Amino acid sequence: MNKKHISTKENILQTTIDLLNKKGLQNVTFRNVADALHISLGNITYYFHKWDNLMDVIFTDYCVKDVKELYLYFPTNIHEIAQYISRIYDLQIKYTFLFSNFYLFFNVFSRYNHFKEEFFIDRMDKMRLGFIHLAEQNYMYLPSKDHDYDLLTKDMWVFVANWYGFSRMFNDSPNRITKEQFFMSIYNISVFHLTEEGKIAILESFDKLRKEGVFDK
Amino acid sequence: MNKKHISTKENILQTTIDLLNKKGLQNVTFRNVADALHISLGNITYYFHKWDNLMDVIFTDYCVKDVKELYLYFPTNIHEIAQYISRIYDLQIKYTFLFSNFYLFFNVFSRYNHFKEEFFIDRMDKMRLGFIHLAEQNYMYLPSKDHDYDLLTKDMWVFVANWYGFSRMFNDSPNRITKEQFFMSIYNISVFHLTEEGKIAILESFDKLRKEGVFDK
Repeated sequence: MNKKHISTKENILQTTIDLLNKKGLQNVTFRNVADALHISLGNITYYFHKWDNLMDVIFTDYCVKDVKELYLYFPTNIHEIAQYISRIYDLQIKYTFLFSNFYLFFNVFSRYNHFKEEFFIDRMDKMRLGFIHLAEQNYMYLPSKDHDYDLLTKDMWVFVANWYGFSRMFNDSPNRITKEQFFMSIYNISVFHLTEEGKIAILESFDKLRKEGVFDK
Repeated sequence: MNKKHISTKENILQTTIDLLNKKGLQNVTFRNVADALHISLGNITYYFHKWDNLMDVIFTDYCVKDVKELYLYFPTNIHEIAQYISRIYDLQIKYTFLFSNFYLFFNVFSRYNHFKEEFFIDRMDKMRLGFIHLAEQNYMYLPSKDHDYDLLTKDMWVFVANWYGFSRMFNDSPNRITKEQFFMSIYNISVFHLTEEGKIAILESFDKLRKEGVFDK
């Protein structure tokens, strides 16, 4: 393929992602994509015969690829956690159509159901181990009846997987959740389980991001 | 209307709610409802000309009515909170199609958007005041930088509005959230802000429900 071919194909993919993010998973058609790009329908179907073909490339070559890359490295140092949360945030915004509503996504695209294992179960297990690891380093309390890291993992996932969809219902009102509040929510959900040392380390790394202007974007 | 008329109409409504809960908001047709009830399509359209008419009755006469009833009385006594959470749980299960995915619901039925004020904003404000009230009674810490009850309200709503949709992705696996874990999650998300007295009061009222077998259902 020459350069023009590649860029048309990539433009179609990127524009579709943008429209899905803006209008929702089930409200985008080939026609919308063609209109947004000022190209003909035939120009799109030359690259993607059916909508499903287009979605398969978006899901497999974009979403799954980026998520895999994120999870290649799981932070074991508490000072790296804020930076890691920041990467999760960026990925969620990049693929809002997927991350703001997993339940809907896997309902509409049941052919991707086998990805659930990799998307959730493996990573929830990784998070459980992460909490134990932080406890061994005295940043979190050791597991006990009060400190149930299985439950904390579930609660954290419910929050991380749904906050943006919830927030989007409120647009620019005070009820939306800002980027800084996204970070502080993760802190608040886990703070009861953090030791004084853990609290200081997390808040310091949030402060660092704040000073870098990460929350202003 | 005679009794047979009323009961057919109510059967259609109840069966539609059951199917919506089971199959999802966008996967139910008149045909499905007719098949489930072993009646003809015409029998349904006699009562409801269009799908939208049926949904309007379900939303207005069932969901909105029940939610209004729930919020008529907002607990101000900490010992009543567990019982109240239990009523929220029951309502969420009764109308899973709505409560497991508000974002989707208001996307699909944009004509109900004016209910957002009543469904969320008013009640989030009520919860914020509820936390302040509990703080005044020494069950929670007074508002401060550490105890941000605006953020706690948002986090609680993200959890309550999304836990069941998330949990449903995992069916009967250990990653689903049980009824008892639903209660314990609400406790865990707020525990950092509870005084010792508050913790004892909440845990005691959960224990009472546990002994009554509420969590076994």
